[in-house]
Amino acid sequence: MEKKLKIMVIGAHPDDCDLHAGGVAVKYARLGHEVLFLSMTNGSAGHQEMGGAKLAMTRYGEAQAVARTAGIRYKMFDFDDAHLEPTLEARKMLVSEIRQFAPDIIITNRPNDYHPDHRATGQLVMDASYMVMVPNFCKLTPPLRYNPIILYAEDRFQFPAPFKPEIAVDVSDVLDVKFAMLNCHVSQMYDWLRWIGHDLDEVPADEEARFEWLCEHYRPIYEGGARKNEAVVAARYGEERAKQAKAVEVFQVSEYGGRLPADQIDTYFPF
Amino acid sequence: MEKKLKIMVIGAHPDDCDLHAGGVAVKYARLGHEVLFLSMTNGSAGHQEMGGAKLAMTRYGEAQAVARTAGIRYKMFDFDDAHLEPTLEARKMLVSEIRQFAPDIIITNRPNDYHPDHRATGQLVMDASYMVMVPNFCKLTPPLRYNPIILYAEDRFQFPAPFKPEIAVDVSDVLDVKFAMLNCHVSQMYDWLRWIGHDLDEVPADEEARFEWLCEHYRPIYEGGARKNEAVVAARYGEERAKQAKAVEVFQVSEYGGRLPADQIDTYFPF
Amino acid sequence: MEKKLKIMVIGAHPDDCDLHAGGVAVKYARLGHEVLFLSMTNGSAGHQEMGGAKLAMTRYGEAQAVARTAGIRYKMFDFDDAHLEPTLEARKMLVSEIRQFAPDIIITNRPNDYHPDHRATGQLVMDASYMVMVPNFCKLTPPLRYNPIILYAEDRFQFPAPFKPEIAVDVSDVLDVKFAMLNCHVSQMYDWLRWIGHDLDEVPADEEARFEWLCEHYRPIYEGGARKNEAVVAARYGEERAKQAKAVEVFQVSEYGGRLPADQIDTYFPF
Amino acid sequence: MEKKLKIMVIGAHPDDCDLHAGGVAVKYARLGHEVLFLSMTNGSAGHQEMGGAKLAMTRYGEAQAVARTAGIRYKMFDFDDAHLEPTLEARKMLVSEIRQFAPDIIITNRPNDYHPDHRATGQLVMDASYMVMVPNFCKLTPPLRYNPIILYAEDRFQFPAPFKPEIAVDVSDVLDVKFAMLNCHVSQMYDWLRWIGHDLDEVPADEEARFEWLCEHYRPIYEGGARKNEAVVAARYGEERAKQAKAVEVFQVSEYGGRLPADQIDTYFPF
Amino acid sequence: MEKKLKIMVIGAHPDDCDLHAGGVAVKYARLGHEVLFLSMTNGSAGHQEMGGAKLAMTRYGEAQAVARTAGIRYKMFDFDDAHLEPTLEARKMLVSEIRQFAPDIIITNRPNDYHPDHRATGQLVMDASYMVMVPNFCKLTPPLRYNPIILYAEDRFQFPAPFKPEIAVDVSDVLDVKFAMLNCHVSQMYDWLRWIGHDLDEVPADEEARFEWLCEHYRPIYEGGARKNEAVVAARYGEERAKQAKAVEVFQVSEYGGRLPADQIDTYFPF
Amino acid sequence: MEKKLKIMVIGAHPDDCDLHAGGVAVKYARLGHEVLFLSMTNGSAGHQEMGGAKLAMTRYGEAQAVARTAGIRYKMFDFDDAHLEPTLEARKMLVSEIRQFAPDIIITNRPNDYHPDHRATGQLVMDASYMVMVPNFCKLTPPLRYNPIILYAEDRFQFPAPFKPEIAVDVSDVLDVKFAMLNCHVSQMYDWLRWIGHDLDEVPADEEARFEWLCEHYRPIYEGGARKNEAVVAARYGEERAKQAKAVEVFQVSEYGGRLPADQIDTYFPF
Repeated sequence: MEKKLKIMVIGAHPDDCDLHAGGVAVKYARLGHEVLFLSMTNGSAGHQEMGGAKLAMTRYGEAQAVARTAGIRYKMFDFDDAHLEPTLEARKMLVSEIRQFAPDIIITNRPNDYHPDHRATGQLVMDASYMVMVPNFCKLTPPLRYNPIILYAEDRFQFPAPFKPEIAVDVSDVLDVKFAMLNCHVSQMYDWLRWIGHDLDEVPADEEARFEWLCEHYRPIYEGGARKNEAVVAARYGEERAKQAKAVEVFQVSEYGGRLPADQIDTYFPF
Repeated sequence: MEKKLKIMVIGAHPDDCDLHAGGVAVKYARLGHEVLFLSMTNGSAGHQEMGGAKLAMTRYGEAQAVARTAGIRYKMFDFDDAHLEPTLEARKMLVSEIRQFAPDIIITNRPNDYHPDHRATGQLVMDASYMVMVPNFCKLTPPLRYNPIILYAEDRFQFPAPFKPEIAVDVSDVLDVKFAMLNCHVSQMYDWLRWIGHDLDEVPADEEARFEWLCEHYRPIYEGGARKNEAVVAARYGEERAKQAKAVEVFQVSEYGGRLPADQIDTYFPF
Repeated sequence: MEKKLKIMVIGAHPDDCDLHAGGVAVKYARLGHEVLFLSMTNGSAGHQEMGGAKLAMTRYGEAQAVARTAGIRYKMFDFDDAHLEPTLEARKMLVSEIRQFAPDIIITNRPNDYHPDHRATGQLVMDASYMVMVPNFCKLTPPLRYNPIILYAEDRFQFPAPFKPEIAVDVSDVLDVKFAMLNCHVSQMYDWLRWIGHDLDEVPADEEARFEWLCEHYRPIYEGGARKNEAVVAARYGEERAKQAKAVEVFQVSEYGGRLPADQIDTYFPF
Repeated sequence: MEKKLKIMVIGAHPDDCDLHAGGVAVKYARLGHEVLFLSMTNGSAGHQEMGGAKLAMTRYGEAQAVARTAGIRYKMFDFDDAHLEPTLEARKMLVSEIRQFAPDIIITNRPNDYHPDHRATGQLVMDASYMVMVPNFCKLTPPLRYNPIILYAEDRFQFPAPFKPEIAVDVSDVLDVKFAMLNCHVSQMYDWLRWIGHDLDEVPADEEARFEWLCEHYRPIYEGGARKNEAVVAARYGEERAKQAKAVEVFQVSEYGGRLPADQIDTYFPF
Repeated sequence: MEKKLKIMVIGAHPDDCDLHAGGVAVKYARLGHEVLFLSMTNGSAGHQEMGGAKLAMTRYGEAQAVARTAGIRYKMFDFDDAHLEPTLEARKMLVSEIRQFAPDIIITNRPNDYHPDHRATGQLVMDASYMVMVPNFCKLTPPLRYNPIILYAEDRFQFPAPFKPEIAVDVSDVLDVKFAMLNCHVSQMYDWLRWIGHDLDEVPADEEARFEWLCEHYRPIYEGGARKNEAVVAARYGEERAKQAKAVEVFQVSEYGGRLPADQIDTYFPF
Repeated sequence: MEKKLKIMVIGAHPDDCDLHAGGVAVKYARLGHEVLFLSMTNGSAGHQEMGGAKLAMTRYGEAQAVARTAGIRYKMFDFDDAHLEPTLEARKMLVSEIRQFAPDIIITNRPNDYHPDHRATGQLVMDASYMVMVPNFCKLTPPLRYNPIILYAEDRFQFPAPFKPEIAVDVSDVLDVKFAMLNCHVSQMYDWLRWIGHDLDEVPADEEARFEWLCEHYRPIYEGGARKNEAVVAARYGEERAKQAKAVEVFQVSEYGGRLPADQIDTYFPF
C-alpha cells in the first residue's frame, strides 16, 4: 500500500452502507485502508413491531457487529429514522464529521432513491460538499483543503436520469464477508425487510439456516447485478472476469465532489 | 366489474385534480369504482379580487359541486394556497389520508410543474410513497401492506426530463362531463384563470353562454393533446380510434409507487 | 340539566387529561354533558422499554378503555410524544378541533409545567384561544362566535407565578371511577411512571392487587391535595365538606379564554 | 424643542399602534418630533368577510389615512396577519428597521397580550433589543450604539405579572385626533371589531353618524382608564388634572431596553 | 433603442452576478437599458480569514464599485452567506423585489450548481416565478401582470440534465470591463477564490500587477468557453465571428419564466 | 471529599459560564470535583470588528486558557452566536451532552436574561430537564436515572418575577482566579464588552496594566453584589463573614431540576 486511503460510506439507515459498499469496504480494510460507515439515522422506525430507543439500540448493536466483522468503524447519528430532513443543522453535523475524518472518498446514494431518508441523505452529502472547505461554515472544526471524491452507489431509478455505472469493483472474493455483514443486521434482514417484502414466513428460525436462506436470497440478486454491469466490469477487469463475477459494486462519480482523474482510478480502487 | 378499484387523485388546488384526471375519474365512477379527489390546499390565494376564508369556502363549494357532477368525493386540506411546503407535518397528513383511503392508484403531478404548490404536491406524494407502509411513521393510523401505484398526469416540462406518456385513456365519451366539472369551478374558470391569462373580458356574463365559451376554449386544447399523444393512444385503442379521439388523458408511471405490470393495465384501466 | 355543556380536556399525553380532570369529567358525563379528552401526542415515547407505533397503539387502546369507563370520548393527535412544538401547524389542528367540538369549557395545563410537551400544550391552547373566532384562520372550518372558557388544572410551579386555585370541585364521590380510569393506563401507571419514579418493583403482578396498590398510592396524594385546597373548596361547599373531601380538582381561570362570571360558576359546574 | 426625538410604535396589526399610543403620537408630532408606526403584519386576516390582498391593501390605505391625520409615518411589514412568529428572519427584519430609524423610544405591547400576533410582536421587540447594537447581526445595516428605551402599552393581563403603570401621559387634549385616527380604520372599527364584539348592528350606516357612535363607544372606555390610572397620572400632572383627565396613555418601562432615568422623563415626554 | 429593457441578474453571492452576466450587463447598460444585480446573500462567509459584518461590508463596498464600473445598480439581501435556504420568507422577499423592479428578463443560475447557496438561489427564482403574478402572495406589493423571462447562465453540470446553450452573446468587446468588474471584488478574486483554488501565492501584491494576473488567469478560460460554444454563437453572429470571439455569455431559457419567442431574441438581446 | 461531584455550567457564549459561576467552579475544582463549562454558541458574533470562524477560533482558544487557569474543562457547541434558538435539534444535543457528563448540578441562567441567546439557553436547559431521563428521546444515548439539580445564576430582571437568591457561595478567596479567568477572555473583556459599554478607550494597551484595569473595573461590581446579597450569605456563613465578603455567587434553585433538600446544601456546596 503506497498511501493509506480513508473511505467514508454514508447511508440513511444502519444497513444501507453495507448494501451500498459492503464489498469494497472489506477490500479496503483488508489492504489496511481506513473505512468509516456513517448511518445518518438511528434506525428507530423500520420495523413492524419494535420502535423507539429499543430498536435504535438494537440497530446500534447490529452495526457494531458489522464493524467487527468487516474491520471497519460504524457510526450512527441520532436523527430519528423516517424523519431525516436536509436541514442546515444536519448539514453542519455532517460537514463536521466529514472534516474530522477527512476522507479521500465518500460513497453514498443519489438524491433520488426510494425512501425519503435516502433522498435526504443524498441531498445532505451534496450540500456538505464544497462547504467542507469553507472555514466560516462549522466554525469550530478546521476545514478540509480539498473536496473529497463523492461516489454514488447503484440504484434502479431512471428519473430524472438513470444511474450511470462508471467504476466497477469485483467483490466476488469478499461476497461471503458481505453476507456475514448483512447477517449482523438481524432486525432488518430477518425481520423488517422480510415483513415489508411479504416473505417473513420464509425465514427459518434457526440461525444457521436463516443465514443460508439470506445468502440464497441475495446471491441471484448480486449475480443479476454482475451480469447487468458486465460492460463496466470488463473495462476494468477484462471480459473474462466480468463474465465470471458473482457480485460487483458499481459507482457513479458525483459532480459535486472532487475530480477523479481516469489515471488515478487504480490508486483509489487498488483491487 | 371484477374488483372495485379505489382511485385517489391528489392536486395542489381545487381544480387541479379535475384538470389532471377529470375524464378517467368519471369513467371509474361510472363503472362503480371509488374515486377520491384531494386538494392539498384550500385554494385561498388564486384569485385577483377575493382571498381568505371567503375564497376558500367558495372553492370548497365548487369542489362539492364537482363531486356531485362526477359521482366522486372531493376532500380539501386546509393548507393555505400559495404556501404549501413539503414538510414532515404535511407528509404525515398525506400519509394518514392515503392509508385511510387505501387507494389502488394515486394520480398526481410530477414534482416539476409550474406552481410551487404543484411542485410541493408532487414532492409530498413522493415522500409519502413507501412511508405509507411503515408502521412507525404516523403511528396511530395502521399502515398499508402495499405501495399504491402512482401515476403522473401530463405536463409540458422538458427539464430535468420530459413527461413520458405511458398509459393513455380516451376520454372523448366523457368530455362533456369533464367540461361540466370544470364549469363548477366558477371562481377559477371564469375569474382567476381568465385574469391571469388576460382573457377575462372574453367571458360572457350569461351562465350558459360562458359554459359554451369554456367548452370552446378547452376543446381545441384537448384535441391538440389527443393528436400529440396519438402514438400512446393507438397502443391501447388502435390507430383508428387514436386519430378520432377528441380528448385523452395520459399518464406516466412513477418509479416511487408500486409496480404496474403491463398485463394488468387493462385491469387497472378497465375502459 | 338545563343546558347541555360541552367540556374539552386537552392534555399532552394519554393520561394527562385523566390526571387533570378525570373527576369532573365523570361528574359532567353522569349529568348528561358531553366530554371530550384530547391528547396532543400519541404517547409514543414515555416508556422504559416500548416505543414507536406499538406503544402509541397501546396508549390508544388504553385511552379508549378510559373513554368507556368514564362515558366520554378520547381523541389523540398523532404528534410524536416528546416532540410536540407550538408550531402554526399544530395550532391550526387544535383550532380546527376546538371549532368542531365547540366546547363551553376547555381544561388544560398552564404553559409552565414540568414536561416540554406539557408546556407546548399550554402554549398551543393559549395560541388557539381567540383564533378560534377568526374566520381567516383555518379557513375551511367555520369559526366559533365566542371564546371558550379556559381553565388550568393545578400544578406545583411557583414561577413565574404560582397556580391560583379559583374553582374547586369535590370529586370524592367519583374517586373510585377516577382510579378506574387511571387503571386503564396500564403502560403508564404500572410501567412508565413507576420506572421513572423508581418504584417499579413495588407494583404487584396480579391485576387486582396492582389496582389496589394504585389506589393506595394515589389516595394520600389526593387527600393531601384536598387538605391544601380546603379554603377554595370551602368557598363552594362549606367548611364541613371541605374538611371531609377525599379528593378535589381545582382550577384557575385563564385570562386567554372567555370570561366566567362569578354568578355562573354553578351553571358551568353543576355539582 | 431642544432635541428632536424619534418615536417608534410597533404593533401587530394596523390599528394596534393607534390604540397603544395614538395620543402621545399626536403630541410628539405636534411638537415636531418624528413618529413612525410599524405594523408587523399586513392585517390580512382580521375581518369577517374580506381577506387576502384586498384586505391587506385596504388596511394599508387606512394606515396611510391615519398617517396623514396624525402627522406621522405608518409602515407595514408584509407578514401575513394571524401567522406572525418570532423567527430569526422576522427578528432580523425588525432589527434592520429599528437601526434605520434609530428611535429614542420604542412603544409596543408586552409579550403576553391576547392575540398570538401580539405576543409574537412583544417577543420580537424583546429579541431585537440589544441585538440592534451587535454589528455581526444584520450585517449590512450599521448597528446603533445604544439600546433604545422600550415602553409597554397598557394591557389587562395579570399573569405572569400585572402591567405596572410607570409613566402616564394625559391625552385628553388630543383625544379628538385619536378618535379621528381610529375612524380611518374603517374595516376594523366599523367591521371586524364590531363583528367579533357582537355589536355590528349598532353601527350606523352614515359616515358621520358612525364616527359619532365610535366616539361614544370609546369615550367611557378611555374615561375608565383615566380613573383607573389616576395615581400615576397625578404623579406627573398633580391630582387636580388627574381627576379631570378624559383619556390617558400609560406605559411600563421594559427591562430589555435602555434605561430611562427618572430625571429625564420630562425630556422624553415633553408634554 | 426602441424599448427600455429592465434586466435583473440574481446571484447567490457578490460576484456571482458578474461572473454569470457581467458582459451582457455592460452591453445593456451602454444601450441605456436598466440593469439590477441582486446578491441573495451578504457574502459574509466566503473568505479564509475574514468573516461576519466586516466581510459583508467589504463585499458591499466591492459590489458598489462594480456598480459604478458597469453603470448598473447592485443590491444585496442580508441573508448570511452559506446559510441561504429556499424558505417561504426568502421567496417572499425575492417576489417583492422582482415586482418592484419589474424586469423583462431575469438571469440566474440553474438550481443544480456547485454551492448550496447557488442551488437555493436557482430554486428561489423558480419558486418566485408565476408567484410574482399572484396578488394574494406578498399582499402589499402589487403583482406583475406577466411572468418575466428567466435565463440560466452557463454551468458545467451534466446531471440531472446538461446545461443547454440556447442564446449566445459575444462579449469580446466588453471583456475589459468585465475584467474591471471582477477586479473590484478584491476579497474574492485575490483572496478567497485563490485560497480555495490553491493559487493564492501566485497573486502579485501590486494592484496593477494583480489585475494583469487576473486578466491572464481568466482570458484562457473565457476563450475556452467561446470555443466550446461556437455553434450557438454562430447561430446568432455567423461562423466567422464565432471563431474570433474571445468571450461569450450563453444562456438557457428556463421553462419557469415567460416565453421568449424566437423572433424576439434580437429585441431582448439588442447586440 | 466524600463524594466526587460533577458540575456542569451552561452559558450562551464563551465567558458566560465564567461570569455566572467562575468562583464556585474554582472551588469545586480545588476540592477535586469535576467541572464542565459548556458554551452553547461559538461566540462568533459578539465583537465590533472580528467575526466568523476567526472570532470563533479565538474564543475557543480563550476558553481553553480559562480551562487551564481554573482546572476545569470547557466545551463549546458550534451554534452560531446571535442565532441560538430553542429548537428540538439543540435540545437533543444538549440532552445528549448532559447524559454523557451526568452532572449532579447544572448551573445556567434564567430564561429571561438580556440577550436572546441567553434566553434560548435558559429555555433549552429547561426543555432538556426531565427529558434527560426519557430513553425514547435521544435514543442512542442511555438516559440518566435522575433529574440533575438546576441552579440559576443571578440576574437583575424583575419580570415576570425577580431572581430569588437561595444559595450563596462566598468566593472572595478565589476572586483572583476568577479575575484571571476573565482575563483569558481577551476579545471580550478588553474588546467587545468595552466597545458595547463605551469604555474601550479606558483599557490600557499593556497586558499587565489592562488586567489591573479589569480587576479594578469588576471589584466594586462584585463588592456591590456581595452587599446586596448579605442576607443570603449570612444564612450560610454568618453575619460577620457576610459583611466582609468581597464577592459572592448566589443561585436560585430551578423548579425544573431535581430537588435540593435543605439538609444537603452543604453536601453539594462543600465550601
